[in-house]
Amino acid sequence: MLEPGNIAVETLTVDLGERSYPILVGTGMLAGIGAELAARFTARQVYLVTNPTVGGLYAGAVIESLQGQGFAVTRVEIPDGEEHKHLGTLASIYDQVLATRPERTWPIIALGGGVVGDVAGFAAATVLRGVPFIQIPTTLLAQVDSSVGGKTGVNHARGKNLIGAFYQPNLVVIDLDTLASLPRRELLAGLAEVIKTAVIFDADLFAQLERQLDALLELDATVLRAVVARCCQIKASVVAEDERESGLRAVLNFGHTLGHAVENLTGYTDLLHGEAVAIGMAFAARVSARLGVCDVAAAEQVVALLERAGLPVAIPDGLTSAALADAVAGDKKVSAGRVKFVLMCEIGKTRFARLGMADIAAHVDALRAV
Amino acid sequence: MLEPGNIAVETLTVDLGERSYPILVGTGMLAGIGAELAARFTARQVYLVTNPTVGGLYAGAVIESLQGQGFAVTRVEIPDGEEHKHLGTLASIYDQVLATRPERTWPIIALGGGVVGDVAGFAAATVLRGVPFIQIPTTLLAQVDSSVGGKTGVNHARGKNLIGAFYQPNLVVIDLDTLASLPRRELLAGLAEVIKTAVIFDADLFAQLERQLDALLELDATVLRAVVARCCQIKASVVAEDERESGLRAVLNFGHTLGHAVENLTGYTDLLHGEAVAIGMAFAARVSARLGVCDVAAAEQVVALLERAGLPVAIPDGLTSAALADAVAGDKKVSAGRVKFVLMCEIGKTRFARLGMADIAAHVDALRAV
Repeated sequence: MLEPGNIAVETLTVDLGERSYPILVGTGMLAGIGAELAARFTARQVYLVTNPTVGGLYAGAVIESLQGQGFAVTRVEIPDGEEHKHLGTLASIYDQVLATRPERTWPIIALGGGVVGDVAGFAAATVLRGVPFIQIPTTLLAQVDSSVGGKTGVNHARGKNLIGAFYQPNLVVIDLDTLASLPRRELLAGLAEVIKTAVIFDADLFAQLERQLDALLELDATVLRAVVARCCQIKASVVAEDERESGLRAVLNFGHTLGHAVENLTGYTDLLHGEAVAIGMAFAARVSARLGVCDVAAAEQVVALLERAGLPVAIPDGLTSAALADAVAGDKKVSAGRVKFVLMCEIGKTRFARLGMADIAAHVDALRAV
Repeated sequence: MLEPGNIAVETLTVDLGERSYPILVGTGMLAGIGAELAARFTARQVYLVTNPTVGGLYAGAVIESLQGQGFAVTRVEIPDGEEHKHLGTLASIYDQVLATRPERTWPIIALGGGVVGDVAGFAAATVLRGVPFIQIPTTLLAQVDSSVGGKTGVNHARGKNLIGAFYQPNLVVIDLDTLASLPRRELLAGLAEVIKTAVIFDADLFAQLERQLDALLELDATVLRAVVARCCQIKASVVAEDERESGLRAVLNFGHTLGHAVENLTGYTDLLHGEAVAIGMAFAARVSARLGVCDVAAAEQVVALLERAGLPVAIPDGLTSAALADAVAGDKKVSAGRVKFVLMCEIGKTRFARLGMADIAAHVDALRAV
């Protein structure tokens, strides 16, 4: 239904029974969004949630495409930035959506990065106890990670994503063209999640990244499509097996335990999420080596790729090991005082360990002393 | 596991596959709540959400029972009353719960009426994207209606329950003793939902209510248990068939379309929910007769039982038919400008009709002119 640009559209499916949904990956996708929705939904009224930055670039094309297919579009603006991913922004979406008397069949579309997707998705999960939800992720991070899997939510002063819902989208449309306008720092931050996916699941993808890093950073469409589609495919299969993160899905948190703690302590402003995850992955890889779970060489191969990609790998100096351990204690995966920590065994393979807060602090101190 | 009081505990099951849960109905149940939870949950940390009125009466007994079984209890207070069923109260629960660094296995217990259950349930659905949830409903309305079925949420300035989630409890414990402290007006309001259940599903229950209304209002434990358990059983089977209200479950909205509109226009303060529903049921019964869907005699039998129970049946004078129709237009069940309206065919049987807003207004005017 979508008119492809210069490369073919790749279609994947997240297999969740009656809640299964497709992910479309290609170029030139925004112009076809109206036809795509017209074919899939009966309602002819939609909400388009976006922020001024992304909306300024792409909302026009999306709205034009939707209106061309007879959709009435209510544009809902939220402020740009992780610091606005909170209940107040959610409440402003409620106010804007509910002012128009929505019906349960009217979809909410998220056009933007992870913040827009997470907050708009939580709104979709909770307006009228749930309305259809469509993701149009415009950052690499959102395309390979947050738009797939159904995690929605907002941050709280006590920590990231502490409030939210598991709520699956009905459709994910990934237009690789949108990456052209993405600041390079954000592109690299998204690459951190790509590297994470490779480290935990796919040694071939890791080797491809080592080979094609330059082409990827130059936004070669064919390489991009292959890498983005592979990441989505992997995430989709993980989500299909473990929708509500009771077991397997927790491997996706590789690098996130310390990453979240670093983000939390730096107030979500100094570092992008992917940068914090890169720091967390370097930490997790080296902790894996310290525990004898993987070779030092494999751990350092991960750190080296992160560094080649221009990502930070050192824990910021200002953060003490005690503060980091304390922040980890607030992690959602803590149980009986120990955090479920993802270790790598080799590139493409992981295992879990239960680490106490004193363990975390000791590893931070030991790795800093190297 | 619960030590029953002077009558036997009746156990029902809401059959939802892996999300199935039991409903226990009896007397003297609060003293056994600790043992019940100890047998069902591994965590030894719980949140008890209640309000000052109910908490003042029963939180002591519940906390004592829980602590006696080794539970650490964090008491979370929210203000009493439907006017506090909003995002601000939800945010205060988030603040209180998240301040203690909850884990995903720590249950939230709602001790109170429908407002406590709905708001605490929404918090349970969304804290860490979902924690276990236990309902201890202390009003007749909550016992027969809101505690069963998984509807959680809060009101918005634009209407009732416009924000929320479908989230099933893990356990519902109904202690009929708590009805002794319920103001009579609230008892009657709860009776409205009992009558609703009879009208839409069960002519035998309706006949029992006609026969045993006085014993019920005197809180005869045996009659109460039979009636409450029957209502829960009916609701449980409806929910089991249609968890997310895509079809069958909508019959539970008998009387609620106009009832919600009346509540909305009176600011949720003049009338209790059950009183508004009684007005809505009298309206729905008489509209059913006006449309020739049921006999006038059957409709008037419903109105007569409502009146015998001391419930209001007349639409408040101050509300114009235009204002009511306009409020109905904001109902969650409106689609393409028509509301899915539940009519009665006879006592115990219903059918749906799609009514336009002009139809609603015309029926209001016509019934007022009688």
